[in-house]
Amino acid sequence: MAISGFPELLPAQRFVELAVLDRLRYTFELHGFAPLETPAVESLDQLLRKGEIDKEVYVLRRLQAEAESGDSGLGLHFDLTVPFARYVLEHAGHLEFPLRRYQIQKVWRGERPQEGRFREFTQADIDIVAKDTLPFHHDVEVARVMAEALGVLDFLPPLRLQVNNRKLIQGFYEGLGAPDVPAVIRTIDRLDKVPADVVGQQLVMEAGLTAEQAGLCLQLAAIRTPDASFGSAVWALGVTSPLLDEGIGELTAVIDGCSTVTGVTVEADLRIARGLDYYTGTVFETRMAGFEGLGSVCSGGRYDSLASDGKTTYPGVGISLGVTRLLTPLLQRGLITGSRAVPSVVLVALANEAARGACDAIAQALRARGIPTEVAATPQKFGKQIRYAERRGIPFVWFPGEPHEIKDIRSGDQVDADPASWAPPDNDLRPQVLTQRVDA
Amino acid sequence: MAISGFPELLPAQRFVELAVLDRLRYTFELHGFAPLETPAVESLDQLLRKGEIDKEVYVLRRLQAEAESGDSGLGLHFDLTVPFARYVLEHAGHLEFPLRRYQIQKVWRGERPQEGRFREFTQADIDIVAKDTLPFHHDVEVARVMAEALGVLDFLPPLRLQVNNRKLIQGFYEGLGAPDVPAVIRTIDRLDKVPADVVGQQLVMEAGLTAEQAGLCLQLAAIRTPDASFGSAVWALGVTSPLLDEGIGELTAVIDGCSTVTGVTVEADLRIARGLDYYTGTVFETRMAGFEGLGSVCSGGRYDSLASDGKTTYPGVGISLGVTRLLTPLLQRGLITGSRAVPSVVLVALANEAARGACDAIAQALRARGIPTEVAATPQKFGKQIRYAERRGIPFVWFPGEPHEIKDIRSGDQVDADPASWAPPDNDLRPQVLTQRVDA
Repeated sequence: MAISGFPELLPAQRFVELAVLDRLRYTFELHGFAPLETPAVESLDQLLRKGEIDKEVYVLRRLQAEAESGDSGLGLHFDLTVPFARYVLEHAGHLEFPLRRYQIQKVWRGERPQEGRFREFTQADIDIVAKDTLPFHHDVEVARVMAEALGVLDFLPPLRLQVNNRKLIQGFYEGLGAPDVPAVIRTIDRLDKVPADVVGQQLVMEAGLTAEQAGLCLQLAAIRTPDASFGSAVWALGVTSPLLDEGIGELTAVIDGCSTVTGVTVEADLRIARGLDYYTGTVFETRMAGFEGLGSVCSGGRYDSLASDGKTTYPGVGISLGVTRLLTPLLQRGLITGSRAVPSVVLVALANEAARGACDAIAQALRARGIPTEVAATPQKFGKQIRYAERRGIPFVWFPGEPHEIKDIRSGDQVDADPASWAPPDNDLRPQVLTQRVDA
Repeated sequence: MAISGFPELLPAQRFVELAVLDRLRYTFELHGFAPLETPAVESLDQLLRKGEIDKEVYVLRRLQAEAESGDSGLGLHFDLTVPFARYVLEHAGHLEFPLRRYQIQKVWRGERPQEGRFREFTQADIDIVAKDTLPFHHDVEVARVMAEALGVLDFLPPLRLQVNNRKLIQGFYEGLGAPDVPAVIRTIDRLDKVPADVVGQQLVMEAGLTAEQAGLCLQLAAIRTPDASFGSAVWALGVTSPLLDEGIGELTAVIDGCSTVTGVTVEADLRIARGLDYYTGTVFETRMAGFEGLGSVCSGGRYDSLASDGKTTYPGVGISLGVTRLLTPLLQRGLITGSRAVPSVVLVALANEAARGACDAIAQALRARGIPTEVAATPQKFGKQIRYAERRGIPFVWFPGEPHEIKDIRSGDQVDADPASWAPPDNDLRPQVLTQRVDA
């Protein structure tokens, strides 16, 4: 039986997932990102280096080793960043920097399953890393590439890529005179779950701000613009610091760099903080309309030290898309599905078993021109063969003869056809992703 | 550090693996096989159902659960057949039969690593299953599809798909009067590792044959033909039985059905037995020239019961390609590699940082027409930028200007080019798989 937290798809649904993964890969490679894959496991030393025990790592034990040696010292990776950092250090001598890589793989976490949380799920990460220094323009690049990639997923509900900059908020809090900037960041980060007035009180109680300072922090966090106009909104609050200006400049460059991307909203959202300590500049989150409860489906940012071997430091900027988190609720609700359960465009009808050789030859002629084709399994009545195609979503049934005929079983149209030249409409060549409007 | 038995590829090598996986997928889908994926884990009950403890299953334990509950009851799958059988039973109500599926995934075994043996490796399986009965022509189909798929991998050393039929050998041994047919099959199966004369002695000692019977068994096992002529060679041995005739008929159909496949040798090899109990008719193995020591890289056959829920039995026929087993020795020896470490066809040279916007626009114009392009990371001297492209294997460098020029850095040719219309030769669009002759 299905194991809780390990989603499994039916064939038509799997075509949707493959369509997503194919489009992501296409966009990433267009921008020069190289495909990398790391093993499913890392040593526990690697996995627990940053004290990430809260990630609920799955540890491996050989069944045979029960009595003797116990654990293998290996665990399943819980993200693609830890393995990539290890990969960079291990293969640095064979890699060229800056290194652009994408990595589309499953990751595992022993969490309690709930909506939007899985024990096994697929992530699609892009990162750019360099040796010692990584110019800022790569932040713009990573944002733009992921925005383009999301924009191409035109069968999803509207996505909103929210960008902020840690220098901006940190500079603002410093310019404000906040006594404990990390405490302000931690508190502001709760705005997702806690009402603004409560956060305001906590800023006073826990972060040591005056009521006026707390009010300015909440005003900053409320700024959200689809263009670079956030800058003047920040300056209008009357706080200044060099770090704030630097952050505004960087965020402006990212937003401007994404201004021509279509199919997705890219906006400055000054509420985004990303709690994680290692982000030092640009930060990203992404919300899907109607599914805000999932939290961010695509997150990341700039980190000044992805990896370090003591001599060399590797700064990076990256963003990670939660493919399973994004798709599973849509698939489960039937809001999105594949147009058929098989790749076949054509079913060649079989009049009797003796005709199988001739039918195979027709199928091979179509396949030779890239048209996925299957031959009927048994010589049932043609009506039954047509229903066989219908149940699988195969759009065309081929009737061998003199002349051959092909029927579009959706329209009922039936026309003469030549195995050497007939071709389906481009749209029918691959299973399509079908969407249903969200009645929200 | 790299973990023994968990192979990891450099970017150029990963392009080779992706080329293999893409071509397999393309061929499988052309024939109407649907892509399925199952979780990495199954319940231990499922994994150990057939007493397959010798497969060295990796069991999962949540790190946090250490003190309390111990194992999760889950293990990593060690093949794709057990998960597929479970999938068929679990989703039978939502599937259409006969079901053609391919499944390309990693599997894990806690084995001692050695050449050709890994703890994590990728398999590509195709299977056809039906409810209650599965017509024999699907055996021919599966053989043909995998033969075509292997034939398309034209950068590999020559592959030989060896086909036999359990009915043929079982019918032969029965017709011969062997007192213990399974013992004969088990003994003959050793011919890979044990000299024929020793196997002959074992047939007498362990399987209860006379010396003459043993000699006939060895003569049968020595028959190997690239066409249907094996039939008369078998009949010439003077043994008859109805099951033998049925087996010869089936094997003839498979060999004839693959006669037009190019790029791979398909042959009847009557030595192939496949030790596993569940095969009942057609059996497959595959050898790679110069790498016979790897054993079979692609194996399978017909099994009358892939799965059963007590009421319905699901017979199947399938074949499994060991992608990692096939590729790793070739990649490790440098006999095969990718032509570049990045997908980029073009590097746009950057004269100075102020020109980045214009360079990005050129890159976007090329990408819009499907040409993977990157912009130089820093405005180094053009000579350095060309060497940057060279190190990555990027074939073209674009020099913005009036007019723009593009340089093929392999030939040194430099010509005028328009971002709106220039295109690389088709061969350069994706990284190529480069091969080096095996000096065997």
